[in-house]
Amino acid sequence: MKIAVLPGDGIGPEIISQAVKVLNALGESFEMETAPVGGAGYEAHGHPLPEGTLKLALEADAVLFGAVGDWKYDTLDRPLRPEQAILGLRKNLNLFANLRPAILYPELAGASTLKPEVVSGLDILIVRELTGDIYFGQPRGVRVCPDGPFMGSREGFDTMRYSEPEIRRIAHVAFQAAQKRGKRLTSVDKANVLETFQFWKDIVTEVAKEYPDVALDHMYVDNAAMQLVRAPKKFDVIVTGNMFGDILSDAAAMLTGSIGMLPSASLDANNKGLYEPSHGSAPDIAGKGIANPLATILSAAMMLRYSLNRAEQADRVEAAVKKVLAQGLRTSDIYEEGTTRVGTEEMGNAVVKALA
Amino acid sequence: MKIAVLPGDGIGPEIISQAVKVLNALGESFEMETAPVGGAGYEAHGHPLPEGTLKLALEADAVLFGAVGDWKYDTLDRPLRPEQAILGLRKNLNLFANLRPAILYPELAGASTLKPEVVSGLDILIVRELTGDIYFGQPRGVRVCPDGPFMGSREGFDTMRYSEPEIRRIAHVAFQAAQKRGKRLTSVDKANVLETFQFWKDIVTEVAKEYPDVALDHMYVDNAAMQLVRAPKKFDVIVTGNMFGDILSDAAAMLTGSIGMLPSASLDANNKGLYEPSHGSAPDIAGKGIANPLATILSAAMMLRYSLNRAEQADRVEAAVKKVLAQGLRTSDIYEEGTTRVGTEEMGNAVVKALA
Ligand SMILES: CC(C)[C@H](C(=O)O)[C@@H](O)C(=O)O
Ligand SMILES: CC(C)[C@H](C(=O)O)[C@@H](O)C(=O)O
Repeated sequence: MKIAVLPGDGIGPEIISQAVKVLNALGESFEMETAPVGGAGYEAHGHPLPEGTLKLALEADAVLFGAVGDWKYDTLDRPLRPEQAILGLRKNLNLFANLRPAILYPELAGASTLKPEVVSGLDILIVRELTGDIYFGQPRGVRVCPDGPFMGSREGFDTMRYSEPEIRRIAHVAFQAAQKRGKRLTSVDKANVLETFQFWKDIVTEVAKEYPDVALDHMYVDNAAMQLVRAPKKFDVIVTGNMFGDILSDAAAMLTGSIGMLPSASLDANNKGLYEPSHGSAPDIAGKGIANPLATILSAAMMLRYSLNRAEQADRVEAAVKKVLAQGLRTSDIYEEGTTRVGTEEMGNAVVKALA
Repeated sequence: MKIAVLPGDGIGPEIISQAVKVLNALGESFEMETAPVGGAGYEAHGHPLPEGTLKLALEADAVLFGAVGDWKYDTLDRPLRPEQAILGLRKNLNLFANLRPAILYPELAGASTLKPEVVSGLDILIVRELTGDIYFGQPRGVRVCPDGPFMGSREGFDTMRYSEPEIRRIAHVAFQAAQKRGKRLTSVDKANVLETFQFWKDIVTEVAKEYPDVALDHMYVDNAAMQLVRAPKKFDVIVTGNMFGDILSDAAAMLTGSIGMLPSASLDANNKGLYEPSHGSAPDIAGKGIANPLATILSAAMMLRYSLNRAEQADRVEAAVKKVLAQGLRTSDIYEEGTTRVGTEEMGNAVVKALA
């Protein structure tokens, strides 16, 4: 089993090295190869997703990804900016299914900005389509407006598109995820306004016939944003498009107040995947040794489960993370009075120790 | 001054009649004319926005709108569904500027699902563009996919578009609103992915030169959704496109926990406007006399301020609403122990009394 390790920018390298340490402590031998990505890719090879990095990712069985981005790259042309590496990897590796759990660990209930009774025990899974929608739809660009009241002015434009097979395959992923959990699936759309999402809703409704054991409901995206704030525990699995999923999954993550704890998986049709923490590269705290490595370690656990077919090892890692939380160890982002503040390295070591 | 009164469906008629009562109690003579809209328009004339209703709205100086929608219309073809009336009015009346305050009244702080320290004193204004974006962009539809890996499959598609004049005029509205408030404006985009919103960001940055007294910052929509949950009080005015504004304004409204209190205004270039509560038609409680009329009464106050040029009367209505809250009167949606529960009619009467 070969793992492509892409640390990236900011706190990326620090948190990735803790996850690598945990993987190495499992007593299995994984082949791991590291390559630069994002700003680091640009520095090394003039491109956020250098050819060698893409090649490695394509060859590997799984990709462990840190984070990309730094203010110093903000002035680069868009195709050279760090986040283009993420979009490029998703597209080239066909990683169409993004799984983002939003879980509130009982020990961290106080970290949420929401009242404890609203979020305690929160455990939702957002399934976001990741290779279609307005993220990649052509045509797009800036042009002279060809019609309507503003004809002749400049305009920016993009195309939202979803084809039937794209909707079907993400719906299947979501229904199957729901079968393994609470058996409830909410499909989020904007069918009252968008043709794309009326079509989405129709196809998801068709796919539902194959999953009679899952209760499906449909919700408009604006209402979903409200219900996430009002009563997030009512959700089990949410499935939605790339754009709405971007917004809702970040909102859901923030409900927990501890985004430093949340992993993510982005899978292709054969369960090859890219695994990364839900948080960003946090350049403001990079190099200080205080970043929380747990989201990355939990992402490695998802990798063990989904791509490396090692569910037991995944369970071990997840149990070790719960154990260090129970021991009261906290990085700064989740620190509360009465707990023990530790750095990135110490936290990684504690997880390794807890594996035993 | 002529006001078109469009009660609509569900609780619409009940809450509108309280707002009309309050307007009539101001000692001015407004000409008001009522017409059916939404499901009521469909029942009366076979269309959610009957010709006569649109004509009345076009002729009037302002439109006071209740709410539309009921489950019983869910099976109608999309062009006949109640919400098409809203889209039709916005487009035909050129109501491009939607102003949605999210205010937490001190008396109602407990209603929020967020911790009091996170939301107490919340006062943000969302300026949402309302006649452009993917809501109206052509082409759109369902077709055979013309290219790419899914060529030949059916696909749904829509077009996101913003022209320079559309962005400029909403930016001006937002900067001017910020000038009258905390002088801070956050423009929300997705410039890292969408051409439309890179263009949006560029134009807003240009317009900013005319408002050196307003501090402008730019934020990606996914981050904005997170920051609304994490630290909503950091925002003053937010400006964004139609689609992102739909999602963020509902999330922001829900932060207060009392969406039954939140008004909205949708304005054209000459301050003609449509005024409606931020909440929906709530068919489940329609006809029971328990709906909260205050969002509609506060929408009428916005109408007095923006379209009817009667700022003093607007102040009077807003003060009266604060007074009834201070008196402890609450409809069911905002009821808490120790306050007095009242119905729709009683609440309207209390506001009229408080005007004196
Ligand atoms: C960096 C950006 C392109 C990306 C996205 O919008 O998908 C990010 O927000 C995410 O959610 O992974
Ligand atoms: C009913 C619907 C078309 C409308 C919208 O999406 O704009 C509503 O959600 C709103 O925000 O007024």
